[in-house]
Amino acid sequence: MKTFTAALIQFQVADDPEANLRRIEEGLREAVAHGAKLVCGPELFLCPCTPGSISAHAATIPGALTGRLAELARRHSVYFVPGSIPERREGGKPYNTLVAFGPDGSLIGTYRKRHLFRVEIPGSFTHDERDYLSPGSEPARIIETPLARIGTSICYDLRFPEQTLRLALDGAEIIVAPSAFTKLTGQAHWHVLCRARAIETGCFLLAPDQAGTPPGGPARYGRSTIVGPWGEVLAVAGDGDDVITAELPAESLAEARARMRSLADRVQGDSVPEP
Amino acid sequence: MKTFTAALIQFQVADDPEANLRRIEEGLREAVAHGAKLVCGPELFLCPCTPGSISAHAATIPGALTGRLAELARRHSVYFVPGSIPERREGGKPYNTLVAFGPDGSLIGTYRKRHLFRVEIPGSFTHDERDYLSPGSEPARIIETPLARIGTSICYDLRFPEQTLRLALDGAEIIVAPSAFTKLTGQAHWHVLCRARAIETGCFLLAPDQAGTPPGGPARYGRSTIVGPWGEVLAVAGDGDDVITAELPAESLAEARARMRSLADRVQGDSVPEP
Repeated sequence: MKTFTAALIQFQVADDPEANLRRIEEGLREAVAHGAKLVCGPELFLCPCTPGSISAHAATIPGALTGRLAELARRHSVYFVPGSIPERREGGKPYNTLVAFGPDGSLIGTYRKRHLFRVEIPGSFTHDERDYLSPGSEPARIIETPLARIGTSICYDLRFPEQTLRLALDGAEIIVAPSAFTKLTGQAHWHVLCRARAIETGCFLLAPDQAGTPPGGPARYGRSTIVGPWGEVLAVAGDGDDVITAELPAESLAEARARMRSLADRVQGDSVPEP
Repeated sequence: MKTFTAALIQFQVADDPEANLRRIEEGLREAVAHGAKLVCGPELFLCPCTPGSISAHAATIPGALTGRLAELARRHSVYFVPGSIPERREGGKPYNTLVAFGPDGSLIGTYRKRHLFRVEIPGSFTHDERDYLSPGSEPARIIETPLARIGTSICYDLRFPEQTLRLALDGAEIIVAPSAFTKLTGQAHWHVLCRARAIETGCFLLAPDQAGTPPGGPARYGRSTIVGPWGEVLAVAGDGDDVITAELPAESLAEARARMRSLADRVQGDSVPEP
């Protein structure tokens, strides 16, 4: 990989796709002004995570929505992972799909979220993405760019270390994980999971999160985080709207992997069986 | 599992096996006085981790050393995982073997460390357990007890989430991970790894560590830690000799696993390939 500056855009999703697209564009402009060459936004930033809203705003890929996002990447000449969007699926619930664009406006990668989030906290809230989303069936892949090899992951995926490990074994140097962590689970788990995934894989981890409480709730944790491959937090947001940046030094990836060779030290017979 | 109190013994290993066995016994006595029903000590507590010392003190299992440890368990009527000991191996370097005893003094489980630690931090220190240890070839197993099903893991194993995940899928409710984390890697990674393994598996994690700087070094991190299945730190030691205890409420395991079903939500095609 090359040494470059990455940025994460964090904001509270509104019940208005145009307003959310403006927030993404404002964040992108600010990030590029700070020298960012790769800019990432949160999970499902287009509209609230309610069945009606996701269904109403699901988009074909490629299509008009990805065309507008591609144009933002081209205009600012930047690698751009705006986050994930609801992807229309014929005869079924939409996918939750990460999209990535190159600085020429080309669509350079997609990833349909595989692990659909469910949580049940009595007296607080329950949520089950299976009510309004379909899971992807293809393993997460690497997006090859001249900056770095970027592995893809979305929010709840962070709880499945086998996915990020496999991405690292496939050559990932950076993992992007657009998220919408709830405040309650985020307080308990967010930083630990972000840092653990970086430490185990020897990858940079870019985890943009949503902020505030979007329509339909629940409250999000914020705290978008950039972690280095030794597990060090390079930048972290607050709980409100924010854009954070960090330089990702290529040598720190080589250094972490030379210090600790756990990727190479795996042994036979410990693989987790297929479900 | 049942609700009960667990304890961890942390101390600085001396260049004298008899002194180390006295420290283990003192710690055990203190833990039992605090009501502990399961007491765990650190990795390779018998002698310093130098090739000469490990080779000189390697023991057969069962044998005189395990007989003495079993007698301690029996005398105090407690489940006792003193930690790991160098196990003699005909025609090869010793194994690094966790031993577990029941309150009747029976040897109820062993586990030979599979992932041998190596680290290389230029200008600070390098260490390679392959210089003086042989890796185990059998996957870590569950020890069935009336208190809980206990999964086994040792120190560097904590960096391999596939091992603890597999133990949880095999039914583990508690993971014991006797450790000797170095101060430098511990500062960077210890708490994150301990908490991540608990969160991913929905298990209690008992991680007794060594303290101070044993003969031959390097400095240890200490901070023995008991983590609950929601990732909450229930007890943590300082960096010196210490005995810590915590009650492990059975209902918090059921509660964590009802809240977050990541063990059940794994998907096909994400398993990490065998090395």
